[in-house]
Amino acid sequence: MISAGATLRTMRARKPLVHQITNYVVMNETANATLALGALPVMAHAGEEVEEMARIASALVINIGTLSEHWVESMLLAGGTATARGIPIVLDPVGADAEVRGVESMSSGIAPADLAREAARTLGVVASVTGPVDHVSDGERVLAVANGDALLATVTGTGCISSALTGCFLAAKPDAPLEAAAEALAAFGVAAENAANGAAGPGTFHARLYDALYALDPATLDASTRIEEL
Amino acid sequence: MISAGATLRTMRARKPLVHQITNYVVMNETANATLALGALPVMAHAGEEVEEMARIASALVINIGTLSEHWVESMLLAGGTATARGIPIVLDPVGADAEVRGVESMSSGIAPADLAREAARTLGVVASVTGPVDHVSDGERVLAVANGDALLATVTGTGCISSALTGCFLAAKPDAPLEAAAEALAAFGVAAENAANGAAGPGTFHARLYDALYALDPATLDASTRIEEL
Amino acid sequence: MISAGATLRTMRARKPLVHQITNYVVMNETANATLALGALPVMAHAGEEVEEMARIASALVINIGTLSEHWVESMLLAGGTATARGIPIVLDPVGADAEVRGVESMSSGIAPADLAREAARTLGVVASVTGPVDHVSDGERVLAVANGDALLATVTGTGCISSALTGCFLAAKPDAPLEAAAEALAAFGVAAENAANGAAGPGTFHARLYDALYALDPATLDASTRIEEL
Repeated sequence: MISAGATLRTMRARKPLVHQITNYVVMNETANATLALGALPVMAHAGEEVEEMARIASALVINIGTLSEHWVESMLLAGGTATARGIPIVLDPVGADAEVRGVESMSSGIAPADLAREAARTLGVVASVTGPVDHVSDGERVLAVANGDALLATVTGTGCISSALTGCFLAAKPDAPLEAAAEALAAFGVAAENAANGAAGPGTFHARLYDALYALDPATLDASTRIEEL
Repeated sequence: MISAGATLRTMRARKPLVHQITNYVVMNETANATLALGALPVMAHAGEEVEEMARIASALVINIGTLSEHWVESMLLAGGTATARGIPIVLDPVGADAEVRGVESMSSGIAPADLAREAARTLGVVASVTGPVDHVSDGERVLAVANGDALLATVTGTGCISSALTGCFLAAKPDAPLEAAAEALAAFGVAAENAANGAAGPGTFHARLYDALYALDPATLDASTRIEEL
Repeated sequence: MISAGATLRTMRARKPLVHQITNYVVMNETANATLALGALPVMAHAGEEVEEMARIASALVINIGTLSEHWVESMLLAGGTATARGIPIVLDPVGADAEVRGVESMSSGIAPADLAREAARTLGVVASVTGPVDHVSDGERVLAVANGDALLATVTGTGCISSALTGCFLAAKPDAPLEAAAEALAAFGVAAENAANGAAGPGTFHARLYDALYALDPATLDASTRIEEL
């Protein structure tokens, strides 16, 4: 069953620890978004910390666009522990440094629904392709999420935030990753819509985005989400 | 005498240079909070810069939670110079990376007043233990500070900001570190209360926090601070 | 001809890629300001990325205050490619880490107009000296820009933002760098004036600054800019 509201309610009740290995540029943003949504971010990336965190976290989010030697080691260490424990792992291939360009470079002519399905099938994962409409696939089914606002593209780090929030939703619904991923993007999109409503531009929109995540109401969220199975 | 207003007035008149060695994640936040309060932040952490700054600064703030080899060297260098010159040093043991968890991990069963007194006595320092009520001790006396707002816990980096502001107050009142530390936490708490009043959530609260630090009025501040000797 | 409005219009129509090599502390700020103005920031600084970006960007902005070994290598690589391609290069000598002090240290007794002219002549560049009034010179002519707001000095990273925006304007008017640099500072100053109007302090001013850059109107901008040839 798809219900962003129900998953958000479960998530807030459990307050899961979401372990995030990301870069210094967006670390504050993803931690604050995680806190605003109602989960507990832990940003550990040094050797010993990583293992300790990976052992107690409910989800792991890795920004694999941030590659430097000793970070890769931490990512592998955390990924190994998370895999052994069976907790959900979110891999974000787009680094924040190249995030703006990353968005552009995807307009390669392949329909995003097909891209999501093919990526999911080839890699054996649930794949999310974000855009004006997001597409999430497990290789068979494809869910389209039509929430969001154009102002998201005017603030760096919002792609990384969507990965962090995907981790939060997966922590609350680990057995249905396709649905959880779509719900996360829908919830983030609704927050963006609410933040944009009354914002004068990218700066106040950015501040209001955390307010809107904090104010998301599980009881009414599903009335605003637009998730459709293709 | 305890008067956050008087210390703030002195501090703003002197505009002290507060040298801060902290991590990239919160550097902007602590620098902006220092500027908003009315002091001059200097964030130097490279070898030669560190020595130069440590020689002219009025206080040194070190976030020792940010450990990497060459930063430790800079910290020791700056600490040595600051000690030789007799300027106040603030040590913050909680790194921003682990800040969220750090708060949680303190709920170890020991009363915070006792923790502050014991830490101060054992380490020979003035110790601040922050929480819903902050406790500051020099090993004998304990001051409790009951200012603040729950929204502080929804924004990363606010712990590091409180350390930076402690440095600012110490720079203005170096001979009474117990009082200065309590006054700093009280002033920050009042700013948080003012920022929360009218904020829609964590994002606008965060922006308004700098406004509130900037707007703190030495003439009226003491009417809002709640500092009590236990 | 000097017209910040006309250059802004051209820039928004072309949406130039502005390659920025800067530090982690202000990366978010300069990227968001670039996006808000209407250009495309690319923050690549790793070896291979740098060359690729330098080959397709319309301007290069280097914060040479951020010196560490492998960054210097990237800067030289990018600078070499940019020079070979003849695209404009902006060099910002003040690192964000020392930015606050940097501003102070310039009050060396030399009039800023003379400093700009001498720097331009000696180094063979167009030189911008920012302050309450900015001065831009090509070694012969000097343009004074009297836009801006005192709140700019209460937020770290605004110096780096002005360099990034200079890159955006140069990308749109590469053949008249003196005029483009002055127009960029004037446009940023007007945005700061608009952001300050209604801001309660540094925090809301900072958020509103991106709104104001986003809202700059090419049709009316020249009525607000105060650029004068000395």
